[in-house]
Amino acid sequence: MSPNGKRPGTASAAAGDSAKALRHAMSGLSGPEATGWTGTVAAGGSPGNGTKVLILGAGVAGLTAAYELSTLGYQVTVLEAQDRVGGRNRTARRGDELYEIDKNNNVTHTHTCAFDDGLYLNLGPGRIPYHHRRVLTYCRDFRVELEPYVMETTANRVRPPQAGVTWHNRRVANDTRGHLAAKLAETLMETDAFTGELRDLLRVFGGLDTNGKYRGSTRSGYLDQPEIEEWPVPAPPLSFEDLVNSGFWKARFYQPIDYLWQATMFQPVGGMDHIVMALAREAKRAGARIVLNAAVTGVRLGKAAPGASVTYSKDGRKFSADARYCISNIPIPVLRHLSLGDFSDPFRKAVEGVKFEETCKVGWQANRRFWEGDLGSWDDTEGIYGGISWTGHNITQLWYPSHDYFSDKGTLTGAYNFQEAARTLGDRTPEKRLELAREGAIELHPEFKDKKLVPDDKGVSIAWHKVPYQLGGWAAWKPHLEDHKKAYKQLLQPEGGDTFYVTGDQISPLPGWQEGAMMSAHYVIQQILGFQPLTAPEEVAVPDSVALTQGLH
Amino acid sequence: MSPNGKRPGTASAAAGDSAKALRHAMSGLSGPEATGWTGTVAAGGSPGNGTKVLILGAGVAGLTAAYELSTLGYQVTVLEAQDRVGGRNRTARRGDELYEIDKNNNVTHTHTCAFDDGLYLNLGPGRIPYHHRRVLTYCRDFRVELEPYVMETTANRVRPPQAGVTWHNRRVANDTRGHLAAKLAETLMETDAFTGELRDLLRVFGGLDTNGKYRGSTRSGYLDQPEIEEWPVPAPPLSFEDLVNSGFWKARFYQPIDYLWQATMFQPVGGMDHIVMALAREAKRAGARIVLNAAVTGVRLGKAAPGASVTYSKDGRKFSADARYCISNIPIPVLRHLSLGDFSDPFRKAVEGVKFEETCKVGWQANRRFWEGDLGSWDDTEGIYGGISWTGHNITQLWYPSHDYFSDKGTLTGAYNFQEAARTLGDRTPEKRLELAREGAIELHPEFKDKKLVPDDKGVSIAWHKVPYQLGGWAAWKPHLEDHKKAYKQLLQPEGGDTFYVTGDQISPLPGWQEGAMMSAHYVIQQILGFQPLTAPEEVAVPDSVALTQGLH
Repeated sequence: MSPNGKRPGTASAAAGDSAKALRHAMSGLSGPEATGWTGTVAAGGSPGNGTKVLILGAGVAGLTAAYELSTLGYQVTVLEAQDRVGGRNRTARRGDELYEIDKNNNVTHTHTCAFDDGLYLNLGPGRIPYHHRRVLTYCRDFRVELEPYVMETTANRVRPPQAGVTWHNRRVANDTRGHLAAKLAETLMETDAFTGELRDLLRVFGGLDTNGKYRGSTRSGYLDQPEIEEWPVPAPPLSFEDLVNSGFWKARFYQPIDYLWQATMFQPVGGMDHIVMALAREAKRAGARIVLNAAVTGVRLGKAAPGASVTYSKDGRKFSADARYCISNIPIPVLRHLSLGDFSDPFRKAVEGVKFEETCKVGWQANRRFWEGDLGSWDDTEGIYGGISWTGHNITQLWYPSHDYFSDKGTLTGAYNFQEAARTLGDRTPEKRLELAREGAIELHPEFKDKKLVPDDKGVSIAWHKVPYQLGGWAAWKPHLEDHKKAYKQLLQPEGGDTFYVTGDQISPLPGWQEGAMMSAHYVIQQILGFQPLTAPEEVAVPDSVALTQGLH
Repeated sequence: MSPNGKRPGTASAAAGDSAKALRHAMSGLSGPEATGWTGTVAAGGSPGNGTKVLILGAGVAGLTAAYELSTLGYQVTVLEAQDRVGGRNRTARRGDELYEIDKNNNVTHTHTCAFDDGLYLNLGPGRIPYHHRRVLTYCRDFRVELEPYVMETTANRVRPPQAGVTWHNRRVANDTRGHLAAKLAETLMETDAFTGELRDLLRVFGGLDTNGKYRGSTRSGYLDQPEIEEWPVPAPPLSFEDLVNSGFWKARFYQPIDYLWQATMFQPVGGMDHIVMALAREAKRAGARIVLNAAVTGVRLGKAAPGASVTYSKDGRKFSADARYCISNIPIPVLRHLSLGDFSDPFRKAVEGVKFEETCKVGWQANRRFWEGDLGSWDDTEGIYGGISWTGHNITQLWYPSHDYFSDKGTLTGAYNFQEAARTLGDRTPEKRLELAREGAIELHPEFKDKKLVPDDKGVSIAWHKVPYQLGGWAAWKPHLEDHKKAYKQLLQPEGGDTFYVTGDQISPLPGWQEGAMMSAHYVIQQILGFQPLTAPEEVAVPDSVALTQGLH
């Protein structure tokens, strides 16, 4: 129910049109001075009228809800278990302390980030698609400066799972295109169908000669750099057999062509956490109170009147707080260990069933940006400015920095892996993780052998599934599983009538993405305001978390 | 001959290895304190010993030679006909005056750039490939700040020559991949060859279903943006027939996959002319004298002793200057109209024969970056951050700015065309050019209909083939023509013994590229120093100018 006791506009909030509905709703709220949907729900009006809201967890969704609800006149308190806001939106800098849960289920300090001053690495989300408009809007409105994140360059490398070689992206991409086009041309010739416009398309698509053969292309790079009296010669093509046998596409080589990773992607200048710092700053400015080191231990729903009572510990003492609404941004694997009083059985079952994905990142400081190369002594092993190298090794991928090009030092994401690979890496001590990650990196860049160039003591690692209050990378939704459908639908609906809401990318069509977190926060706000139904639609679509985090698989 | 009368190391300067040769040469010159090739020929030593060099034209090659030779102890004077340095490296800003040669062969003021303060547009070169190491090295050494130039985004548009429609890049790219892969799968199935790894590669390459059919893919974008309870549905695929019939690939759609335009490309922050301003600054700092408004009228080679005498006009008066060496960075179509005394017949014939390409650019100021879109009201016609839309219209391409994203105003390159299209556009008055360019732009973005949003009086245009002292975009070399081979070879060789040299991208394997200009300047310096032979190799490869400026054709 909305604060004034009415639930207006529910019918107009047609499924599939919630952004529009929110836009219309907000402009309606603001009366004659309405300026329409600004992307930050910043229309006038104060429907909250001081109504208390407790938000559990200062992740991206929690902070978004805190900002928006405060702006709408609610009295918002955010309880955050950690000593910082942001959740998985975390940027490592010198002096940052990392903690994980050990085998005996104790929280342990694993290591301290020792990057040089001025260097940083995003340990959680690292990029923003151009169509993630909520994230981009908050960045614009809160003056978070953005710069392009380069997802792919043709100087990046590929180390296919089934071959003991390292190739350049440009050769794998263009020689594969060329061979496939030539193969199609060949089969078309058999039926005299290799003619006209299709023939011309294949020639240009694949870089074929006029007879439909692929003999290599300068698209794959030059054999040697051109000199004044020499025309550049194409690098000789990789053989089709070698490409097919290598299984290179299984190393996520085509992930960059999926919509979520298409150009132009962005990143905040100076680190992804500028987004959560800005959200927290603006939420506070709008009146929200953010309590750090406040670990929620239980939630009890009101029996007599709508509302929730939350218990939490802070500085070794126990506290409790009450509110009309409670929004939980707590990761579901953490939520299920809390004391949940008077929650429904279907809700408990849903919370029990949701799995989170294992995922690790490793970060390196390199004292020279060797991947960019010595400009004065170019050879074709260099010239990497951003992008990702893909490998069949445990590390899965190696990211190069998309910022501070041509400077001296830099940081690299030395592993970003999932599932089995992440379990293997995560089960090791930080030192042993770096050892494994270095092996994978050496296969891509022999320079990693040099521990003065890439020192161990400046390496960082994180196994998100072991991080206290996180326990995973994102909800591992599988669309074909019936119990996942049930759980997803259940979690879209509040508990205790209209009292308790789950939010986060964990209950969004974009698991693992900040846009999903913000979308979920907006949805929950709409439910509280009465512009989205409290009951989930009969048919809900469960996201395919692997596709949404790793591309077509 | 080198200044000390010896010609050392010629044998070591193997063809195809000139950069290495220069590196070795320079470190040899500097004696025990040699630090090797630094990319800027900045090794110690002063072999020039005050020897006079006249450089005709302050384009990229002329400035590069001026800087390097001054650093090496030569006494360098640069004569530049225009009131600015840079040649085709030109960035338009408010107040810049544009001149062209009219039908009666008179130089006319065409218009004044009226962009708002702070806006700019590169009228000449607009991007730097990651493998153009000379340009990158000078930028680093001279502190020209670089930022990524985005060549392609999947939000860009395509208006194929043979279809009256405008499509998104992501749909054309991925639906074509998908259909071609499905077609190959289909033909392979006929012979039961659609199996194993190849089958799996095609599935991932094309986004096929497990039966080898292409039914659309989220790679082509979503039908609607995802909402909380809805899984995003792929945009329906463009039909293969429509794609093939459209001739989209003839609109240079695949140019971005050619090596020269592959990611990561760069541009100087604030305008491409920061490169020539830095080169001129450093050349002067090293002792070079740059004389502006000094139009060369003739060159006479010494008969008795090696050297050249140059006549030029400045402020309505005639001057002459002598030097031991003379390096001409004057575009060949301009050079052939000078009085050339005692040049050889083969040289005259070469200079007569070289054609330059017609090329135009149009620039628009837009008072709102509508292509980026209103973040709060996203629809899939927006989200363009850089990149190029391709069209069969006369304008050929539309560039979006790769800088100052999310700001208010911006400039666009509203046409960049060649040959016949450039002749047609260039023959019009500036007003009529904008009229034609607006028609082409409206087909891509209806917003161009709004002359308040994109005002005529802030539009600029340039037909490089009509610009005084330029007369074209770049040398139109064709590798299969016997007389082009003769001319290219001839122009690699100095005239008057070792006195007069032609330099510029016009006599390099990279016509139209600044890297070619710098490569040529380095080559000429090596010839003067005696580290490259004065006689061209028996076999020279003539560049394919169309491929090098427009991609595979």
